[in-house]
Amino acid sequence: MHYPEPISKLIDSFMKLPGIGPKTAARLAFFVLNMKEDTVLDFAKALVNAKRDLGYCSICGHITDKDPCYICDDQRRDRSVICVVQEPKDVIAMEKMKEYNGLYHVLHGSISPMEGIGPEDINIPDLLKRLQDETVQEVILATNPNIEGEATAMYISRLLKPSGITVTRIAHGLPVGGDLEYADEVTLSKALEGRREVL
Amino acid sequence: MHYPEPISKLIDSFMKLPGIGPKTAARLAFFVLNMKEDTVLDFAKALVNAKRDLGYCSICGHITDKDPCYICDDQRRDRSVICVVQEPKDVIAMEKMKEYNGLYHVLHGSISPMEGIGPEDINIPDLLKRLQDETVQEVILATNPNIEGEATAMYISRLLKPSGITVTRIAHGLPVGGDLEYADEVTLSKALEGRREVL
Repeated sequence: MHYPEPISKLIDSFMKLPGIGPKTAARLAFFVLNMKEDTVLDFAKALVNAKRDLGYCSICGHITDKDPCYICDDQRRDRSVICVVQEPKDVIAMEKMKEYNGLYHVLHGSISPMEGIGPEDINIPDLLKRLQDETVQEVILATNPNIEGEATAMYISRLLKPSGITVTRIAHGLPVGGDLEYADEVTLSKALEGRREVL
Repeated sequence: MHYPEPISKLIDSFMKLPGIGPKTAARLAFFVLNMKEDTVLDFAKALVNAKRDLGYCSICGHITDKDPCYICDDQRRDRSVICVVQEPKDVIAMEKMKEYNGLYHVLHGSISPMEGIGPEDINIPDLLKRLQDETVQEVILATNPNIEGEATAMYISRLLKPSGITVTRIAHGLPVGGDLEYADEVTLSKALEGRREVL
């Protein structure tokens, strides 16, 4: 044991976070020792409160400190559109855009046969329940553009086809500010496939 | 405000740590939400305890949860040698080596005229007090091999010269496992200067 116990415990805690190895953990722990006591107490409180006070919205599955969440509860939002995303982070990314005014549905995962995650393991049954109510006219599938995300989008779109609800998928293409030269072939082919007439 | 308050507070706390920007902080905060409650409580406790229970050894200045620290208190250690380092982390690096059996003295900084840090601002006066006791025969200067570290080593060595104590500086040279090709000129020149006869 090279470290006094309180610091080695702190290093162990930091090492449980993603992307933080022993060296970074030690650097962060030593930084904490030099922080003001109040700041450290606030940090500890923030950790406990985040874990204790946050839960998932019983309607859409987004993280929230009250139920239903502020999005589901907002009467100015368009209740005829539901955007399906994989994670609460994706809701936040969408909200930052400030252009979408509909509701969300968070799946908390994606279908992945490799990891044994099937449609029942993610929040799909709840989505179906929400769609029984006839106000919803469009479901936008905004799962990630990778194998699992595509499989999930495909599964949901097939599932909803008989219901007559419009199901759309967000566009694939070149990211704005990106370079044609550095785009991979699949993205380029999707961008070409999704081309639109210039008006 | 895109995040519920408890999570945005946690993100703010993570952002106070070095090398953690808004994106990493958000990633870590969301990771914490998915951690077990016990683990999060342990993390919070580790933060508070590390800050509350750790202080600096009144003899050598190393971080410790009891005073004097376990190194100063260890009667098996060689009390005739003191290794002078800049930070508590450096003591830990030296201890990992498991070859040094003397005592330490932590300066908590280095002389840096650029930042207005003079010899009185770091732990040099305490070092001089420790040397008045005649058991110490060698002072090893293990400050960092950069401008500030060199200046500090130079300053201490001149200060101690009249006392007759042997003052040594750790060797500069190529790191083991390093490549001659990638070594900078100063390191290479120091390595050449410090060459030793092969026996």
